This record gives sequence, structure tokens and C-alpha cells, in this order.
Amino acid sequence: MARNITRGLMIGRFQPFHNGHLSLTRQILKECSELIIVIGSAQFNYIYKDPFTAGERMLMIHEALLESLVDLKRCYIIPIANDENNSRWFAYLKSMVPPFNSLYSGNILVTNLTSSSSHKEIRIIEPRYERKTEYNGTSIRRKIASGEKWKKFVPASVYRIIERIDGVYRIRMLSESDSNPQIW
Amino acid sequence: MARNITRGLMIGRFQPFHNGHLSLTRQILKECSELIIVIGSAQFNYIYKDPFTAGERMLMIHEALLESLVDLKRCYIIPIANDENNSRWFAYLKSMVPPFNSLYSGNILVTNLTSSSSHKEIRIIEPRYERKTEYNGTSIRRKIASGEKWKKFVPASVYRIIERIDGVYRIRMLSESDSNPQIW
Amino acid sequence: MARNITRGLMIGRFQPFHNGHLSLTRQILKECSELIIVIGSAQFNYIYKDPFTAGERMLMIHEALLESLVDLKRCYIIPIANDENNSRWFAYLKSMVPPFNSLYSGNILVTNLTSSSSHKEIRIIEPRYERKTEYNGTSIRRKIASGEKWKKFVPASVYRIIERIDGVYRIRMLSESDSNPQIW
Amino acid sequence: MARNITRGLMIGRFQPFHNGHLSLTRQILKECSELIIVIGSAQFNYIYKDPFTAGERMLMIHEALLESLVDLKRCYIIPIANDENNSRWFAYLKSMVPPFNSLYSGNILVTNLTSSSSHKEIRIIEPRYERKTEYNGTSIRRKIASGEKWKKFVPASVYRIIERIDGVYRIRMLSESDSNPQIW
Amino acid sequence: MARNITRGLMIGRFQPFHNGHLSLTRQILKECSELIIVIGSAQFNYIYKDPFTAGERMLMIHEALLESLVDLKRCYIIPIANDENNSRWFAYLKSMVPPFNSLYSGNILVTNLTSSSSHKEIRIIEPRYERKTEYNGTSIRRKIASGEKWKKFVPASVYRIIERIDGVYRIRMLSESDSNPQIW
Amino acid sequence: MARNITRGLMIGRFQPFHNGHLSLTRQILKECSELIIVIGSAQFNYIYKDPFTAGERMLMIHEALLESLVDLKRCYIIPIANDENNSRWFAYLKSMVPPFNSLYSGNILVTNLTSSSSHKEIRIIEPRYERKTEYNGTSIRRKIASGEKWKKFVPASVYRIIERIDGVYRIRMLSESDSNPQIW
Repeated sequence: MARNITRGLMIGRFQPFHNGHLSLTRQILKECSELIIVIGSAQFNYIYKDPFTAGERMLMIHEALLESLVDLKRCYIIPIANDENNSRWFAYLKSMVPPFNSLYSGNILVTNLTSSSSHKEIRIIEPRYERKTEYNGTSIRRKIASGEKWKKFVPASVYRIIERIDGVYRIRMLSESDSNPQIW
Repeated sequence: MARNITRGLMIGRFQPFHNGHLSLTRQILKECSELIIVIGSAQFNYIYKDPFTAGERMLMIHEALLESLVDLKRCYIIPIANDENNSRWFAYLKSMVPPFNSLYSGNILVTNLTSSSSHKEIRIIEPRYERKTEYNGTSIRRKIASGEKWKKFVPASVYRIIERIDGVYRIRMLSESDSNPQIW
Repeated sequence: MARNITRGLMIGRFQPFHNGHLSLTRQILKECSELIIVIGSAQFNYIYKDPFTAGERMLMIHEALLESLVDLKRCYIIPIANDENNSRWFAYLKSMVPPFNSLYSGNILVTNLTSSSSHKEIRIIEPRYERKTEYNGTSIRRKIASGEKWKKFVPASVYRIIERIDGVYRIRMLSESDSNPQIW
Repeated sequence: MARNITRGLMIGRFQPFHNGHLSLTRQILKECSELIIVIGSAQFNYIYKDPFTAGERMLMIHEALLESLVDLKRCYIIPIANDENNSRWFAYLKSMVPPFNSLYSGNILVTNLTSSSSHKEIRIIEPRYERKTEYNGTSIRRKIASGEKWKKFVPASVYRIIERIDGVYRIRMLSESDSNPQIW
Repeated sequence: MARNITRGLMIGRFQPFHNGHLSLTRQILKECSELIIVIGSAQFNYIYKDPFTAGERMLMIHEALLESLVDLKRCYIIPIANDENNSRWFAYLKSMVPPFNSLYSGNILVTNLTSSSSHKEIRIIEPRYERKTEYNGTSIRRKIASGEKWKKFVPASVYRIIERIDGVYRIRMLSESDSNPQIW
Repeated sequence: MARNITRGLMIGRFQPFHNGHLSLTRQILKECSELIIVIGSAQFNYIYKDPFTAGERMLMIHEALLESLVDLKRCYIIPIANDENNSRWFAYLKSMVPPFNSLYSGNILVTNLTSSSSHKEIRIIEPRYERKTEYNGTSIRRKIASGEKWKKFVPASVYRIIERIDGVYRIRMLSESDSNPQIW
């Protein structure tokens, strides 16, 4: 990598992008000169676990960073599909993003894959997640589906986008189609 | 679409094609000039949830329509594989079938995907399913696996085809391989 | 196969369905009780070699058979995607269509694949193609692209469908995008 | 789309990102409030026609925009893989990017696909490409391979990145492996 | 097949290769002149159910056979990916291995697929598995994850390889990432 | 890697396995303790450029090594499919084979991919190919297709296998289907 640039990478499904994610972007931008946000499972959408398209998630992240005055000139936001061959996945990831020095991840699988001899040059950093039980995609989708309050767990811009694209209705529908007997 | 032709589309996995499906074909042919039957999950077979190949299901539908004197000149039967990207799936569907005006589906996901701005020209119609708990693929496969009676839930020709291809044995085998510890 | 039914299968890309194809459907229906028409390369469309979607080709074949008073009760029309593993392709084909006894094909690869020990039960029959240089997809697309007459090489209904979907314009555009330097 | 935001989309392989591309980004940002740059054929790399990975191209575009003082707060840069089913490709594209109003493309296929009834809400705009024969990926790769001058056809930052990753050597190697008899 | 050679095929995921598998290789080499060992689900790795890569499993089998003085000149070890279309899978298998006469499998699905008319030439033989509850991949992985003893269930060379590649740690990590709430 | 074992890897399509390949296996076994032979493009077959299935090629290599008294206890023969993402391909390769120290390849692309920072631990060795214009797959297939002599370019066992599976006829058929106008 050139000219003393250091890059930190974080990865998530961002279904939706919430305050915990936002806070991690700030941590990384303090410790590295540039930030790469990887939108994982980019090919999935319109299922209860993954309600939003990669494009919608891109928009949420972009607008949330803008609104929070995060410097977009220092950020990359990149959608990546899954790979059924985990051992190959990390090479796939590296082919899709600019070179990076640090991977912020508490996921044991990601850590394990990265620590193999081929990727020794990358440092793994355990993120400091705040309020992990509330700033949590699974829990937020559940609240949306059951009509509980969830506004304060996501950036205001994310809330507005979900409203605009009728995301609450979508998540409720999808949660029902998961629990009801399927017709076809 | 040309010359006052209207087409209605129904979609199912047809594992197997049963009397509820047959009754929906009649409803659609009363309301539209032509009927498109889409065989979903076409790539799956020889699993308990999807025991029959797309070719076998094609045959069941064709013979059931013949036997019931449904006018095959007004029918299309088309196998379609799944797409992991739901948002793209509807465009894939449209590339594989003749143009259609109405989609007969009670599935909330299908309805949701179709109602997006790109597909506004298609009407969604909630099908009138008869005797939904009996005319139901899951329940019929369960009866076949456990040795209960199931003959009256499917058209006579479908019953004959399942006998001819040894389908009862196949479904029983598959139900066991699902519940037993796998060896490899 | 049951009850003395014999099925003959023909395969083509049908870009577009022309009089040579129509004439082969008649030959097969004289020699077999049922006909299976397989639309190959079903996943391709909007390229010069494969301008029409599988759905459009389905429509062409259906309407051409109707118009020619071919008995649709005896016909199956089934789209099939390619498989990069040729040796596996024939098994894939068999999983997607009803059982058949005869394969009408002059294509040496198809003949070769089918004659392997696993598929000995299927007879290969060399089709009697009429006026092969005129009733020929490549030559018809070339005529369409260059503004020559082509109407008499396809069934009247196919001609009408191509007009209705602006197919002449599409083929011309695609022929240009093949010969011009691409921009991206 | 919300609050009077208009988005214009441009698509390219960016092998490499050159001055013609840069000039188009400026045109779009004059006419729209936001710009979406789609990196096409994202899955290809290390072939003569597509030497750079999606990640490397991402970096080139990001740095070229920075250097040219283009406002990155108004830009999205998104890699997209090809789809063998062209008719489905546009729906795939829409699932991967934020909503957009205008598509800047002179490619006839793209124009043709977009003009179908499902995508009527999107305006197609013919880009004003400057110096098309020089600002042209094919011609730049050929110059690099044959040792001609090419520096003035790309932004300075793109030139530096290609040097840093040894891109000139890579393109020369790949051009040879295309023209020489392959060994395996 | 030529010159009185008979080949027997066994298939497994070999996660890991254990004494039951080894014993089956001996049975087959008594009954056939050559043995084909197919490593199934070859594309999976770094998941709790499939912790080892195909390459690692290849190594385990090779070294276990060497150590047990099995004659490697009579053995083929071949990794094969899954196929979502089961009916096509057997043709895929046949395209990837030398011709064989006997398939050693107690798996009902495998037996069912093979008994179809296209594969009549292949004999299905029910393997004599010894100590099935102990010589069993699922149970061995569970023991490894929970810290129980497992050394005596696998060949000594397999034990050494798992130690060398830190496989115990890997399996424990993967078992946790399955049971813990996922972060992204 | 353990216990002073060194492994050398060679990769080829082996259409068919010829004397040049055989000679390289000998070179590698002189320089390394074990040899890994990777059958590339494993998914292709029944095309003129790739006439033989991976299984047939496996058989050719196995029998040629046996016949030449190469020690099979020191050899791995492993089929690998291609990957459209070259940059990911090397990671895929590493997931499918035992760890290796040296890669014997004169292919510039392979060399280039391997020399990236992630794979620095692997030595690239330029193979000493003998009689490169004669011991050459393309030239051998051409001779077979045109009826010229080719027997002396391949091991005797390979010659016998090609005869047994009617490979000369297959290659001729495929060479014609490439040069003749296709019918569908």
C-alpha cells in the first residue's frame, strides 16, 4: 500500500445499518486513514433475515454517513456476494476491495480464515460494539415485525429510508410468510 | 400484448399437482383467455420436500389437464428454477414466459415483489383455494410417506403416474433419509 | 413409459422458429404419439445470435402450432438452459422432460452423447430437414439485420410476433453492437 | 425517490478508468444531484481484456475523483458482475444500486433493454464522449502492451496506481499469454 | 471396462476420515480390483458440519491408506462438489471418475437415484459398517468440540494431520459460531 | 508442512496426457518428495478442445504412471474446475489440494497470480518441456482429427484407453461439429 495510507475493513449484512455499525465506522476512522465497509450477503433480499436489497443498504449507509458528518472522501462502501467455499471467500473479498491492513471483526470464522498463512499481513481487530443486544439487526427486525419501537436504534436517515420504501410493511409481510404454511 | 388476449399466470411446485391446483386452472381459464402454469423450484428433485423431477411434474400437469378436458390449446406449462436474488427473480420469470396480465397468488412475497414500480402493469389476484388443508402438497406427501389414503386429493391421472414411476416408494425412502442420521 | 405412448423429442434454439422446424414437428407427430420441443440455450437473449427470450420463443412456437392446426394436446414445449459439462447435460435434459423414445437430431455431439451406455434405450433419428439453407436461423437473422426479405421462411404467426415486439429493430441493433467497438 | 434528488448512472469496465470516463462523471454531476458509477464485469481480472480486479478499479476511480476535486459525497461506486441472461440483468442492476432517474449510455444493448415497458421511468441519455479514439480502454491497453505512451490518457492518480501494482508488466504478460500457444 | 478390471466406488464427506471408512476401503479392495474414493461436498469447508477443505481430506485419506499399507496403486481419491439437481448428480459423478461396477452405499437416496433405468449396469452393495455409532463423523466432530476423547476412532495419521493443522481449535471455533448469535 | 515432505504441483488439461506430461512428472518426483497433478478445466468434455471427461483423464494419468513404474504412493491426481475470477482461482486451488512448496508452470498468468503477496511461500519453477511442438495437446488432437499418426506422442496405456472408449471417433466428430454450420 502506498503513501502511509492505512485501511480498516468492516463487514456486515446491514439489515438494517444501525447505531452500532455507525459507531464502529467512527472507531475505524480514528485508527486508520481510510474505511472500507463491505455489505455482505449482497445477493439476498426480500427474505425476513435479509429484507433489503444491496442497493437499498448502500443508500442507507451513504446517507447515514453523510448525516453524521463522517468524511465520505475516506470511505468505500462495497457489496459482496457470499461464496459457498469459505476457504476461497477471503481471496474473493480481497479481489473486490482496495488493499487493507486491518480487519475489524469479532466473528470467529472470519478471524480463523484470515489467520491462515496466506493472509498474515492483515491484522484482526476485535470491534468494541456498544449496546450489543439493542444495536443488533436480528433484534431490530423483530421489533419492526412485531410493532415495537425501533426508531432510536438506527440513524435518523436510515429510519426515513425505511419509511420511504415501505420497509416496515415489507418486513412484516416477510415475517408472516416465514411463519405461515407456504402455499406453493 | 396483442389482439385482446389476456393471460393469467399461476405458480407452484406441484409436488404433486393436486385437485386444488386443478381447480385454480379452471378459475383462471374462466377469467383469462390463456393460462400459464409455472413449475417453480424446477431444479430440485429426489428430496422429501421436492420428490419429483420437473419432467415428471410436467407430465402430471399435462395429463391431468387432458383428462379434465381443459383446453390445452389455451395453456402454457413452463418449468422455472429458483433465483437466490428475489428482487431479480421476477424479471427472470418474465424472460421465461409469454407476457401476462394477471398473477394468481396468495403468497405475500410474490405479491410484494410484483407490486414494485417496475411491474405495475400486472394485476395480483388472490386465488380461491378450495379445501386448503387437504388439497395441500405438504399434507399429501406426509400421507404418502405414512401410508395414509391420498388418492382422492389428486387427479386420477396424477395418481396413475405416481404409481407408474414408483413414487410412493420414492417418497417413503426420502422421508426416511431425512429423519435418519446420514451416513456420509 | 405407459400405455403404448411413444414420444419423440426435437431440440433447437428457435431464434426464430421457422418453417424447417415446423415441418419437423409434423414429421415427428406422424411417427410418435407425442412430441417434445426443447427450447435450448434458454438463458440467453438480447444477443445477436440469440435475440429472443425463452418466453418469446415459447409464444412463437405455441402460436405457430395453433395456426398450423398441429394438435397441441400432443405437444410439450420446454425451455432448457445449457450446461458447461456436456456429459452431464443429457441427464439434465432427461430430468426436465417427460420420458421419450426417440431423439430427432442431426447434431453429431448430441448423437454422440446419447449413444453412451447410459442412454441406450433412446433411438436417434436423423431429421429430414427441408431447404436447409433457407430454413435456417443464422441465415434468417442475417436477412433481418441487412433488410432482406425473410417473411416466407417463418410461419405467419411468428412473423406477426416479431413485428409486434419490434424484433426487426432489436436484431438490427444487436448486429451493430456486435460489429462496432464496444464502449464499456 | 425522495426530496428532489436526481441520480444519473454510468457503467463501464474501467480497464482502466481514463479521462473520457472522468469527463463523463463531470457531465453527470452537472445534470443530476448524485452520480452512480457501476463497475461492470466485476468478476473478471488477470485477463488481457480485463487486467485489473474490481478492487483495483474501485481504488482508481476513488483516487481519480478525489484528485479532480469531484465531490465524493455525491458519488456511489459499485461493482456488478455480468449476468448471462441479459433480460434479467437490468433487474439485477436495479437491485444493487440506489434508485436512479437517468442512465448515461451509448451502448445499444443497454438502451434496448432499458426501454422495455418495465423500466419506462428511466431516461436514457447519450453521453458526450470526448476524443473517443484516444480515451478508450482497448486502445490504452494496446498502447501499454506495446510500450507506447499512454500517460496522458488517464488521470495522474490512475497512472500512479498502475505503476504501484506493476500493472504495465501485468498487461504485457497477459497480452503475451493471449497470443502465444497455451501450454495446458 | 477393460481387461477384467472391476472397480468399486465409495462416497463420503470424510469430516474426518475415520476407522469405519478405512475398514470399508479394505472390504472393497477384497471384492474389486480397484477402489474409487469420492470426497463428497468438496466445495464446503470451515463450517461446523464440514470443517476441513477437500485438500485436507485428500491428505488424510492418502496418508491413512499409506500407513495401513493399503495398495495406493489400486486406489483413486476424487473430490466432487454437490449438485442441487439430484437427478443430474449421478451423471455428473460418472463424468468425474473412471468407470465402475459396484457402488458401496447404504444411503437410500444414492441407491434410489442409481437404480433408475439409465444406470442399471451398476450394482449397489450395502456396506458392512463396523461400530456405526462410534465410527461416525457427526459423533467424532461432537467429541472434538466438547473436549472428549476421539483419538481411537480415526487412523493415527489422520489424528496427526488434525493436530498439525490445528483442527481441534478450528472445530471448536466453528461449533461456537454455530451456536452463538451471529454478529453480521 | 510436516516432516520434511516437499510437494511439487503441475497443472494441465491433459487432453490427452502425453509424453511431455509424463516426463515432467519424473522431473518433479526427482526434485520433491511428492507430486500433485491437477487436472484443470475439469468440468469440460465432449468439445473439440476438451474431448475427454475428467474421469477419463484421471484414468489415463493413473494407468500411464502405473505403466511407467512411477511410484503412485507419492502422487495425488486431482480434478479442478475453472473459476471466472482468476484472482480467486489460486485460493480455490489451494483449498482443493494438499499443501505444496513448488509450482511447476511456464504459464505467465499462473506465475503472475502466484507471485502476489498472499502466496509468496510458493516457489515457481519453469518446467523443462521436451519436444514441445510434438508433445502438445493441440497438435495431438489435430493429428487425431485428420487421421495422422499420433501413437508415439502418448504413453502406450493412454493410446489403449483412447481406443477402448472410441476416442478417435469422438475427436473426429467434435472437430466436424466445430467446423460445420450448427443446426440448432
